Parts: sequence; structure tokens; C-alpha cells
Amino acid sequence: MRPDQNMKWWGWGVEGVAFDHEGKPGLAPLVREAIDLNLHTVPTEPVPSFDQLTVPSSVAPAELLDAMRRLVGAEHVSTADLDRVVHTYGKSLRDLLRVRAGDLPRVPDVVVHPADEEQVQHVVDLAARSDAVIIAFGGGSNISGSLEPVVGERRPVISVDLGRLDQVLEIDEESGLARVQAGVSGPSVEEQLNGQGWTLGHFPDSFTHSTLGGWVATRSSGMQSDKYGDIADITRGLRVVRPGGPLVLRPLPSTSTGPSVREMILGSEGRLGVITEVTVHVHRLPENRLVLGYLFPSWEAGLAAMQEISTSEATPSVTRVSDARETRFSFATRKKSRSLSSLVSKGFMRLLARRGWDLSQACLSFVGYEGSADHVARQKKLVRAIVARHGGIVLGKGPGELYDQKKFDTPYIRDFLLDRGAAADVSETAAPWSQLPNLYTAVRKAADAAYDSLGVRGWIMCHLSHSYHSGACLYFTFAFRHGGANALEQYTVVKNAIQQAFVDNAGTLSHHHAVGTEHAAWLSQDISPAGTDLVSGLFASADPRRMFNPGKIVS
Amino acid sequence: MRPDQNMKWWGWGVEGVAFDHEGKPGLAPLVREAIDLNLHTVPTEPVPSFDQLTVPSSVAPAELLDAMRRLVGAEHVSTADLDRVVHTYGKSLRDLLRVRAGDLPRVPDVVVHPADEEQVQHVVDLAARSDAVIIAFGGGSNISGSLEPVVGERRPVISVDLGRLDQVLEIDEESGLARVQAGVSGPSVEEQLNGQGWTLGHFPDSFTHSTLGGWVATRSSGMQSDKYGDIADITRGLRVVRPGGPLVLRPLPSTSTGPSVREMILGSEGRLGVITEVTVHVHRLPENRLVLGYLFPSWEAGLAAMQEISTSEATPSVTRVSDARETRFSFATRKKSRSLSSLVSKGFMRLLARRGWDLSQACLSFVGYEGSADHVARQKKLVRAIVARHGGIVLGKGPGELYDQKKFDTPYIRDFLLDRGAAADVSETAAPWSQLPNLYTAVRKAADAAYDSLGVRGWIMCHLSHSYHSGACLYFTFAFRHGGANALEQYTVVKNAIQQAFVDNAGTLSHHHAVGTEHAAWLSQDISPAGTDLVSGLFASADPRRMFNPGKIVS
Repeated sequence: MRPDQNMKWWGWGVEGVAFDHEGKPGLAPLVREAIDLNLHTVPTEPVPSFDQLTVPSSVAPAELLDAMRRLVGAEHVSTADLDRVVHTYGKSLRDLLRVRAGDLPRVPDVVVHPADEEQVQHVVDLAARSDAVIIAFGGGSNISGSLEPVVGERRPVISVDLGRLDQVLEIDEESGLARVQAGVSGPSVEEQLNGQGWTLGHFPDSFTHSTLGGWVATRSSGMQSDKYGDIADITRGLRVVRPGGPLVLRPLPSTSTGPSVREMILGSEGRLGVITEVTVHVHRLPENRLVLGYLFPSWEAGLAAMQEISTSEATPSVTRVSDARETRFSFATRKKSRSLSSLVSKGFMRLLARRGWDLSQACLSFVGYEGSADHVARQKKLVRAIVARHGGIVLGKGPGELYDQKKFDTPYIRDFLLDRGAAADVSETAAPWSQLPNLYTAVRKAADAAYDSLGVRGWIMCHLSHSYHSGACLYFTFAFRHGGANALEQYTVVKNAIQQAFVDNAGTLSHHHAVGTEHAAWLSQDISPAGTDLVSGLFASADPRRMFNPGKIVS
Repeated sequence: MRPDQNMKWWGWGVEGVAFDHEGKPGLAPLVREAIDLNLHTVPTEPVPSFDQLTVPSSVAPAELLDAMRRLVGAEHVSTADLDRVVHTYGKSLRDLLRVRAGDLPRVPDVVVHPADEEQVQHVVDLAARSDAVIIAFGGGSNISGSLEPVVGERRPVISVDLGRLDQVLEIDEESGLARVQAGVSGPSVEEQLNGQGWTLGHFPDSFTHSTLGGWVATRSSGMQSDKYGDIADITRGLRVVRPGGPLVLRPLPSTSTGPSVREMILGSEGRLGVITEVTVHVHRLPENRLVLGYLFPSWEAGLAAMQEISTSEATPSVTRVSDARETRFSFATRKKSRSLSSLVSKGFMRLLARRGWDLSQACLSFVGYEGSADHVARQKKLVRAIVARHGGIVLGKGPGELYDQKKFDTPYIRDFLLDRGAAADVSETAAPWSQLPNLYTAVRKAADAAYDSLGVRGWIMCHLSHSYHSGACLYFTFAFRHGGANALEQYTVVKNAIQQAFVDNAGTLSHHHAVGTEHAAWLSQDISPAGTDLVSGLFASADPRRMFNPGKIVS
């Protein structure tokens, strides 16, 4: 993001854009039922004014700041409180609760906006000479605690905002590769590529505010990754600034140069240097694009259908199915609110009734298709047969347009709820197909037990968001009305219960949200203690002075 | 491999299987023209008898051997000279020249054949206690110098042969995953899986004699990787024995647990521990399987067609095109030797002449298809249109059957030539599509310059063997009649020239043959010095006492 486009210090998105439940009459009753919250009241927990916060002063020595100003220009070096607070946290619920509460034990001492890789190199070399800490900052949308300075850090902390490195530098049309600066945001990279007939095809929920470098640093995955791949597949070449000079990986389709350095930088969360440039796969804009809605009689049927699609000859761009709860939620947040039963004709309803459907268990699914008319038609036909085999029905384009319309809106709802005293967040995992039904049940049980232990009415819903040959990502959203002062402790109880259920049931601690500080406690349970040792050893040897974003992934 | 199936100490494959040019009348004239070698003579450089070799004695202390015998059984611990020599080298030309010359400065002191992971753990722990070196050994087919002990190594060197860990342990049918012991050979894993209706789909040239653990340790790629993926894609879960206990990675479709430990083990060549178990993607045996031959008027046309296929809606299982030289070679090694012109009808030849083809420049291509009849038909149609757009023609099934028949034979030809005083080997690379024509030209030039500098008549030929979205693998085979005593020096001149041309022209040092000692000199040119530092640091931190296969990848 450009520095002047930083997100709100207290929530998601830029000032002036927010969620509102007006015109969505189905939402308030559902929220009332789900978490005992009345939306028809004024916010009970309004955002404090920024002036109410006590922001620790910058401890950056004057000579460091002077040197930095000489390197990048005084106007690109900021010690202003607002800038420093915006660069302190990401946007997890824990981050929002803390920043709204003025819980700011350590904020960066200075925010610097270098213009290019050369300036990043100067800043990193200056930090190395000055015994300072570097925290690379993209869009600030991380929800795993990957951005915050270590509490008690005595060295000066420099937040390096990559927002000015926002250009597509070159497209190699023959190879389907583009050299792109790491600070470019989702909308900007697509705009620059689309103008020349290309697309990156990477659309994470955070798309509007996250950056290419951030995606690489956290192993992001987008809504159309079934076709375009996760960022780990998309990323081919890399430039990473380290003291003395950059690490450079040329774009290669595949290579056998030992342990993969590319796969060490991916997911490194700024701990191995500052990513300045990424060479990525790009694709010609598809001739046709279509997202169709389907309805399954049960979650199990939906999962089984997605599994069958993943091993079939169909190659859709999106596979997604929501559980019954998320299906209800989806319909409740439609612009012209309609219940599921109002979406379809009476005749259709009678058909479902004859088939013995329990509509409260119905699960909404989206499958996306891209390519030539012939290809799309063939895909649709293959998928239709699979859906039918699992008792599902085709809803058509309407819900697909709904999907496209709303796909980046969800984070705003969280702020809206938070203003009204409800904590909401997401946790996602991936596991083999055979484990998904058990995993799902265990996570719901764990969340419910956590809610019970807190004595709150809580909600958890889920969708399958990405399919692979051997498994899929399950993406959970949870919410409850918190108790005010102890909101953070309550949140921790629920979040931890869900994370523990992931790793106890063959799931990973996160499919695409990274480790950060939020998930670090589960790393050894996920990749075994010996695996954690390898990662720790890599960081210790590559950054013995712990100058790059210390405390993340492993502490 | 089972211990009793070890390859010849002096060449490829098991005793009794060899290449012969009888019945291939086209080969001798081509070899005469290409490298000035007369095949119609008796071998000039016959393999010496094993008794002529001077094999250094084992320096393993008696107490170490005794302890090992107690751990795995005396019959599974060998200090016999033949066993130790077989476990000293892989099968590169350098390896064969050295072993045949009795150049054995350091051989393992003992070869141990553990029965299972528990025994591997005991052996590794014993080695750690005894300050011994562990070199894991699969099929011994490596051609990058990944197996040889460091010359001058003073500690006892234990070759851990994984041949007894050869079972498919479990198939998770719902997830398309199989848990497989690392020592299983290609034919064995396919036989075990095929019996239950599944396939791994991994068919490297070394298939007959290489193992799953070896594929993982060297980042192998198979002939059908366009469909099934490289071993890096196929590998999901891993168990790696390290001192004190195994590193365990659960099978996950995708994960964001920081720098990828899975991708550290992949390509680690035994430097991070002993791989004992791999959970891999498996697929249902395809309903139909078809490899079709095509002919292009030029190498450039063939490359361009493969590139277009890679971005089209066709998803073939194999894409391959040979340059004009390799095309001639392919036809010269047919069982009933036929020139290209005898393969097709006179009418067809007239058609080609009318089109202005220069048959000496024609390039043979194979494209493979798998799946339902409908799917295969559609793929064929898409590919046929692309081939036609690039001036190519369909040859049909005949050449495809040729491809299937010969695919694992090539290494035997090398021994046959070596017996007659000619050095032959392979080097392969990968690069973006846009770079391939230049890279190809530069490599041919570099090889020719090397031959000129040596005053020998040399040959180099090439095929594109794997296609990706952004590039492909170019696989070169080179040969020349060497000068006898200085064969190794001459080989080094040619091999080095080719490797240097790779990294100087946007190629990687190896697409799927690993780094070992053979390619280590180019690592920093490939992944930059900072990249090499990360790899060195990983090894140093994970194995501070250098007990696991020291000296490989980075020295």
C-alpha cells in the first residue's frame, strides 16, 4: 500500500469504508440467535479517539534517524505516533482488542518508506551497523501476530514499509512470468497486469489491502488457487535484501539445487531479510469466467463431492462448500436479504422435500470455471454429474454473483461486531480428505466446549476453501459476545481450543495464515520438535544477531 | 534394492543385462560419424576383474562393528570389499571411470542393512555416540557424486543401505496417499501399488534401480511428471531419522508453517538425516494410456509447440521433443533399424518435401495422454491443432511404443561405449521458455568448444523432457572418444563447459539430478552466494558434527 493508504489503526480497511447491516434484514435475527447480540442498538464499544492512546516515545537515536533521512529522504521517514501505531500490529482480533485498549508495550521507533531495492539495502545495512531491528511491512493485514515488535526489545525497531515498491517491472510473455516489486497491493498488481492482458490470479480474502511480499512471507493462498496455485507455486524468482547484498533466486520452473532456498524464504515472515522483488507466474486473462452455485443435502455430501472433483478430470478454478451454518449466514448477509427458501421456486422446494432434504442442513457450494467456452462447458458437465452423484443440485449463476460481490467484505463485519461487544475471528487448517469429517466435528466440539467453559453463547461455522489431490483447507469463522474487560482472555480460550483441535486431528496449524506469534505454540506439534529445530537453526545461522523480525515462528 | 540386487560395481544394472548394438544396424554408422568410434571391434577397455582392485581396509573399530551386529543382526553387517566398493560411488561417468581404474581413496568401512526405522534409529544413535559418519544409500544410481565418502575422512564411515525398507505400508484410498518405506525400488513400489489399483506415476530414467528415498533426497523427476508432478510435489509426509529420534512431517495437502521443512529434506542428499518413510500421492491406474509420436520441421518449432501446449487447456502426461541429432539417434537404436525416411510412406515423404522440410532437421516428439477415452480424445485434438500450428505432423502410435519400450535402456549404452573407449554422460537443466533457444545454442557451442580444445570429435544431443507453466527441462547427452589415461580430465573439461553454459544462460545447475559434489561448484552462481550461505547454515546448525554425508551440496 502507498503510505497514505494505510489501513485504519483500529480496524480493517481505509477510513470511511465499513459494514452496515441495514438492508440485510436477515442478519440481525441470525446474530441474535447465534451469539445473543442485538444489532439494533448503538455500538457499546465505540472506537476510542486516537488521542486517548498512550504511545511510547521513539527510542531511535537521532544519528540513526538522521542517517535514515539522508538515505531515503526526510519525507519518507516518520516517527509520528499514528504511523508507528499503524505499523505495530496486524489485524487479528487480538491485535484489534489490544490497539483499541491502548495496549502498546512496544511500537516501532521509526517507519521508513524506501523507494526501491537500493534504498532497502541501505536501510538494512544501516540497521546492521546500528544494531537495530528490521520489521518488513506490506499491507499490515496479517492475522497471526507476525508484525509486532518483541516486548522489551531494547534495540531501535525500524518498520520498513514496502509501499513505494509497487511496480510490475517486466512481463516475460513467452514464459508467463512477471517481475514485480514486493510492496504492490492486490488491486494494483492486477490493474497493472490486466492492462496488458495478464492476471496473477491470486485473490486472498485480504486482497484489497495485502501485498505480494506479504503473501510470499506468509505462504498465502487465494480464492482461485485450485487453478493458479498457492503463492508458493506462483513464486519463481526472489530478491531478498540481507546485510551486504541481496539473496537472488532466478526464476526457474523447477530445480534440484538441494534444500530449497525459495521454500525457505516462502513463509519466512521477514526473518531472513526483506523481500523486495518476486518473479511470479502470470496467465492470460481467461476468455470466460463463471462461478456456479450448488446446494448439497449435507456437509458430508458436499465434502465428498469436492473430493471427487479433485480426483476427476475436471479442473475448476474454485471449489468451495459451506457448512449448514455458514450457508444460513451467507443468505442472511445478502443485500436483498432472502432466506434460502425464498431463493428458489415453490416447485423446487417441493422437489427437495420429496427428496427428503432437511433444508436446515443444506450446504451452499461454489465451483468456478475459466477458459474457452468449450472447456467451461465440459468442466460444468463433469462437475454436474459429480454433484448429482452426491445428491446435490445446481443453483446456477445467482449465488455465484453473490460470491463475487461479497468476497472481500468479510473483515469489515468483524469490526462492526467488535463495536457492539462481540469477538469474531477466523482460523483455518488443511488435512487429508479422509480426516476432514472427523477434524470438522472435533473443531466444532472444541469451540463449543470453550464457549461453555466461558459461559457464553458462541458460534462457529466453516467452509472448505481450497482443494488439492490429497486434501483440502477448512476455514472456520467463530464469534461470541465477550465479557468486556476479559475479552482477550476469552478470545484466547476459544482460539487455542480450535488450534489444538487442528493439530490433534491431522490438521496443520494454518493452511495459509502463517505462524507468527499466534500459532507458534503449535509448531512442534505440527512439524515435530526436530522440524522446529531445523527452522530455529536456519534462523540462528542466517541471522545470528536477530536483527530480522525476531520472535516470530519460533521464539 | 534388496542387498542381493545391488548394481554392478563397474556399471549400470545387474550382472547379465547389457546393451548390444547387434540388430541395430543404424547405430554403428551414426557412432562412427558422431565420435569416430568403430563399434565393429572388440572392447578396447574391458572391465578389470574385481580382484585387480586395491580396496582400502575397513577402519571401523571392532567394538563399533560388534555393536552394529547386535543391533541389526550379523548377517546384515558387511565389511566385504565388494559390498564396500558398490556402496562407494554412484553411476556417473566420473564414478565409472574411477572405479574401473581402481581409484578408491576412501570407501565406506561397513555396509549395514537395517530392517526397519527402529534399527535405522539404533544405527544412527550408535554412529552419533561413536563419532562415525552415516551415508544413506538407496539404489546407488546417483550421477552427481552424492554418495562418496570425503577423501581423508578419519572417522568410521557407515553406509546405511535402505534396501530392506521396501514396503508400501498403507494406502489411504480416500486421500490418494500411500505411506511407503524409503528403500523401495521403482519396480517394487509400482508392483505393490498396481496390485491394489494404484500408481505412483514416478518414472525417472533410473526407475529400475533407484529408490523412493533416493528420489526425495535428490529431487527426482519422472517421465510423466507433467501429470503426476516432480517428487517434490508427490512427497507429502516424511520420516527422517536423526540422533535421538525421527523428524516427522505429517502428510498435508498444503501448509503455512514457516520455511518449509519438507522442502529442506527434499534435495538434502542425506545431510539432514536418514529418510525412512515417505507419504506420497498415489493415483488410480488410468483407464487409457497412449503416447503419440509427432514430427516437427525444426527444434525451434518443437519447442514453441511444447510451450503452447503448456499454457493450453490440454493436460498431457508427457511432453517431449528431441533435437535433430537425438531424433537421428532414436531411429538408429530401433530394434529393427529404420531410418526416419523408412518409417513413413513415400507419399508422406513427398508431402514433407512439398512443405519444404529438411528431413535432417526433423525433430521427433512424444506426447502422452491418460484418462477416460473422452478425455484422451479431447487432449489429442487440442494437441493436434497446436502441433499443426507449428508445422508439425502426427506420426501415430508406432514411435510412442518405441518410447515405452526403450525408456529405461539408455544407461546401458553408456557402459557399452565405455568398454570401447568412449565417454558418454548426461547433463540436464531447466529455464524459462523464453531462454531455452539461447540456452540450447550456448550449450552446444560450449560443448563443441570443449571438444575442440581437447582435439576430439564429440557429440551432444538434447531433448526437452518436462514442461511447466513457465519453462522446461532440457536434457543433454554427450559423448566423445576419450584419450585413455586422461579420460577423467577430458570428461571434466566437457562436463564443466556444459554446466557453466547452463548457469550463464538462465539455466539451473540441474533440474532433477541434484548437486552432490559434481555440481557444487555452480551452486552460488545458481542460487547466489547468500542462498548458499542459507543452505550451509542449515547444515551446520542441524548437523554440527558433520555426521551425515558431509561434503555434499556445499563443502
